[in-house]
Amino acid sequence: MAFTLEELAGRFGGEVIGNAAQRVGSLAPLDQAGPQQLAFLANPKYLAQVDTTRAGAVLISPGDLEKLASREGRNFIVTPNPYAYFARVAQAFIDLAAPKVQPGVHPGASVDASAQIAASAVIGPNVTVEAGVVIGEHVRLDANVFVGRGTRIGAGSHLYPGATIYHGCRIGERAIVHAGAVIGSDGFGFAPDFTGEGEARTGSWVKIPQVGGVSIGPDVEIGANTTIDRGAMADTIIEECVKIDNLVQIGHNCKIGAYTVIAGCVGIAGSTTIGRHCMIGGAVGIAGHVTLADYVIVTAKSGVSKSLKKAGVYTSAFPAVDNADWNKSAALLRNIDKLRDRIRALEAALPAKPQGDA
Amino acid sequence: MAFTLEELAGRFGGEVIGNAAQRVGSLAPLDQAGPQQLAFLANPKYLAQVDTTRAGAVLISPGDLEKLASREGRNFIVTPNPYAYFARVAQAFIDLAAPKVQPGVHPGASVDASAQIAASAVIGPNVTVEAGVVIGEHVRLDANVFVGRGTRIGAGSHLYPGATIYHGCRIGERAIVHAGAVIGSDGFGFAPDFTGEGEARTGSWVKIPQVGGVSIGPDVEIGANTTIDRGAMADTIIEECVKIDNLVQIGHNCKIGAYTVIAGCVGIAGSTTIGRHCMIGGAVGIAGHVTLADYVIVTAKSGVSKSLKKAGVYTSAFPAVDNADWNKSAALLRNIDKLRDRIRALEAALPAKPQGDA
Amino acid sequence: MAFTLEELAGRFGGEVIGNAAQRVGSLAPLDQAGPQQLAFLANPKYLAQVDTTRAGAVLISPGDLEKLASREGRNFIVTPNPYAYFARVAQAFIDLAAPKVQPGVHPGASVDASAQIAASAVIGPNVTVEAGVVIGEHVRLDANVFVGRGTRIGAGSHLYPGATIYHGCRIGERAIVHAGAVIGSDGFGFAPDFTGEGEARTGSWVKIPQVGGVSIGPDVEIGANTTIDRGAMADTIIEECVKIDNLVQIGHNCKIGAYTVIAGCVGIAGSTTIGRHCMIGGAVGIAGHVTLADYVIVTAKSGVSKSLKKAGVYTSAFPAVDNADWNKSAALLRNIDKLRDRIRALEAALPAKPQGDA
Repeated sequence: MAFTLEELAGRFGGEVIGNAAQRVGSLAPLDQAGPQQLAFLANPKYLAQVDTTRAGAVLISPGDLEKLASREGRNFIVTPNPYAYFARVAQAFIDLAAPKVQPGVHPGASVDASAQIAASAVIGPNVTVEAGVVIGEHVRLDANVFVGRGTRIGAGSHLYPGATIYHGCRIGERAIVHAGAVIGSDGFGFAPDFTGEGEARTGSWVKIPQVGGVSIGPDVEIGANTTIDRGAMADTIIEECVKIDNLVQIGHNCKIGAYTVIAGCVGIAGSTTIGRHCMIGGAVGIAGHVTLADYVIVTAKSGVSKSLKKAGVYTSAFPAVDNADWNKSAALLRNIDKLRDRIRALEAALPAKPQGDA
Repeated sequence: MAFTLEELAGRFGGEVIGNAAQRVGSLAPLDQAGPQQLAFLANPKYLAQVDTTRAGAVLISPGDLEKLASREGRNFIVTPNPYAYFARVAQAFIDLAAPKVQPGVHPGASVDASAQIAASAVIGPNVTVEAGVVIGEHVRLDANVFVGRGTRIGAGSHLYPGATIYHGCRIGERAIVHAGAVIGSDGFGFAPDFTGEGEARTGSWVKIPQVGGVSIGPDVEIGANTTIDRGAMADTIIEECVKIDNLVQIGHNCKIGAYTVIAGCVGIAGSTTIGRHCMIGGAVGIAGHVTLADYVIVTAKSGVSKSLKKAGVYTSAFPAVDNADWNKSAALLRNIDKLRDRIRALEAALPAKPQGDA
Repeated sequence: MAFTLEELAGRFGGEVIGNAAQRVGSLAPLDQAGPQQLAFLANPKYLAQVDTTRAGAVLISPGDLEKLASREGRNFIVTPNPYAYFARVAQAFIDLAAPKVQPGVHPGASVDASAQIAASAVIGPNVTVEAGVVIGEHVRLDANVFVGRGTRIGAGSHLYPGATIYHGCRIGERAIVHAGAVIGSDGFGFAPDFTGEGEARTGSWVKIPQVGGVSIGPDVEIGANTTIDRGAMADTIIEECVKIDNLVQIGHNCKIGAYTVIAGCVGIAGSTTIGRHCMIGGAVGIAGHVTLADYVIVTAKSGVSKSLKKAGVYTSAFPAVDNADWNKSAALLRNIDKLRDRIRALEAALPAKPQGDA
């Protein structure tokens, strides 16, 4: 399971400089790699480590290669994006090292007779596949996965243990759905049907049936225990190559644009549209019925309550500071109108008012 | 599966205006509905759509009906709350369309001999039902549900795949518990048992046994991957018709009053009491041991650290703005005491002090 | 299942004052306890309740004992930490009262032939244990638990229903992992491999393989639906006696120091190091690649974006106030630079500038 540099370049691209017959069998950081290992330089601040590395070869960009004092006695694969190259090679090494899993349906699985399951699929123990489900080639459903009636899982997808996909959803090719994720649960919709006020109020919340589904594009990854609700009438939509971290909540009828990444603990309320290539930081909250333009970045812990119509970086979070200092600032903020009033009074007391109102 | 307007009015109330024999078989928005479909007007801003709709009938309030230029050639069901009426009809259409599920216990379920399970209940594959559990009429437990010893599930409840109810809990009638929800996990309680300070500190956290349960009233809905902890000594209580969204955390010994709705990603620490008819916005955090009055509304992303004793709307969240602008404001807030000092100095420098201190 | 005070002192320590042959069989609060019950005084403000309690015995500290007017006719166990003592006794009562579970592997479990399972372990229904797993003495795996290949579970651990432990992880002795928790899911790491800008951007996110594991020390408790990601190359590390509440997210390659407690809904981004004996309040968010010193306390809802190098209490959250008041303060904060400018103008307009700039 070692490759020559020539073999790697044949498979993943890049130009070999040095000994193309050098074999590498695993990956390691520059400062730890040995002669059978492949290292990479993604950040020029580690350039000096290239001079002293013992790695069998180094993935490097053309620009950084130029900066080296000498290439003497070392081997390189030159590629515009060494980090992505590293990721692809690492994935290949892992795939080769992973234990082979036999295709087939575990005897402890419950699979409806009407489900269409590709012969190359792996259906683990205690998996439940309901009527009309379609499972593509090389799909892998780990233990305790549930797939509701009529749902389709695209080729090459991997659903980890305990992932639950409700009925009538569509998962694209090469999806990765981590353990405990729930896709297609009911959106949170209730019609108030109350009369009277206060103590005298009677009535109840009437559930709005959620009859849309969830439609997920290809190459999407969904984190552990993340939840994505089904649409009320139309589908909730996750476009291609969206990457979603753990414990994220996406409300009904949201649309998340392609290539957007969403960090952990984010909550997005219903009917919100996020553009393409957005980056949503950890623990951000986004209100319902708003629209974020393409290339919007929201920094961690911020709250979005209105549409953000232009690409850019948006923030509303404070960094934690000494508690006593914070409490002082917070008290003054609570009374900031009084500071404003005092400024006004000062302005009025001066012979010539210096400036307009805030 | 189509109904005449007369049949609908017989079942759901309301007054038919127009052709009572008109049949409708599904629901659609006003601007998309066809002659066999039922539409509704809940928001007067869409009143003009009623004039042009092709819907077989329109659900409308008496007030909005008055505003129509003409009722000519169209059919109506007049009801004070068209949105709730729509929800009820939609639910009926869905129930009729849903595949019939046979009652009975799936052979792949593990059910303790001492459990009492109504004959009309549906127990799915890989469900575990422990000793002494009582399952009411028409309860449905989907795949991988776990119900711990002595727990009772009220009639008409539906637990979606992978929901876990620990021992000694009580779920009311018609509960809906979505996938991955956990009810009755241990509250977070530990007694510190340490001696010494700093590096020299030794000892450990001693777990406080959590021997209360969770008691959930009728008509409660609990979202996917939401967690509700059991009480330490007494029960955690969720009253009737409370609606809880996904990824909500409710700590031990909380009491959530009837008809309160809690949006996604909310966290409520232990021993907190929330009143009736409250609305808790998404990602709100509420401290432990506080009390919220009836009819309190907390807007999204806010933090509640003290009791809120009066009905009203409460907030502590900022909306995200341009990152550079935010950082400028944040820096000034951090130094707001210096602004205050400069105002003080100005006041002192003026011949007559204009005003008191903030 | 009742103990004499002498027996309790023999097992848990402390000095008996009064009738050492008094038997107690359960625990209750001071004001509710009867003659067969054990109560405790942990907070001196309830000292007066000791004078009137009907409890068979009271756990009390030496200092509080001194403050009693009289010990006449009552029994005590004197211990420096009555609350911790109470917790230990309560745990013992519960263990005695709990139904006996037979060791062994449930016939509905799927256990790989190469797994090593202690004879005293309890493996519940629908549990999946993959190749090479090692399960210690008295481990209990409840229904639907998944343990991936090569993972080790330390003696005395209890994994509640639906907990998922991915491959290659290590769980220490006496761990408690609540329902739905996911340990070892992939860290959130992708290399951007895009070219072009705006509409013309092409390419994709390349997944960085996550080949580290999760290493969890002894006496750790992990809450329901909490997620802990595996490391990218090295392990994510949770040290001994860390207590983690529900719905917490811990990113890849974090290290959480011993005895630290983390409340519900916290999110910690990747490669962050938290010291020993820290207390992280509910819904706190902590950025990636930062370090918190030992004994740091972060109050609920705060956000940490930089390292906190000294022990102390840190905060960045505001308490919710009346919505209209909040909106006024928030608007002034947004324009706080204009207030500053007006102060500057006032300072310039005064004959003698009173003070420097903020």
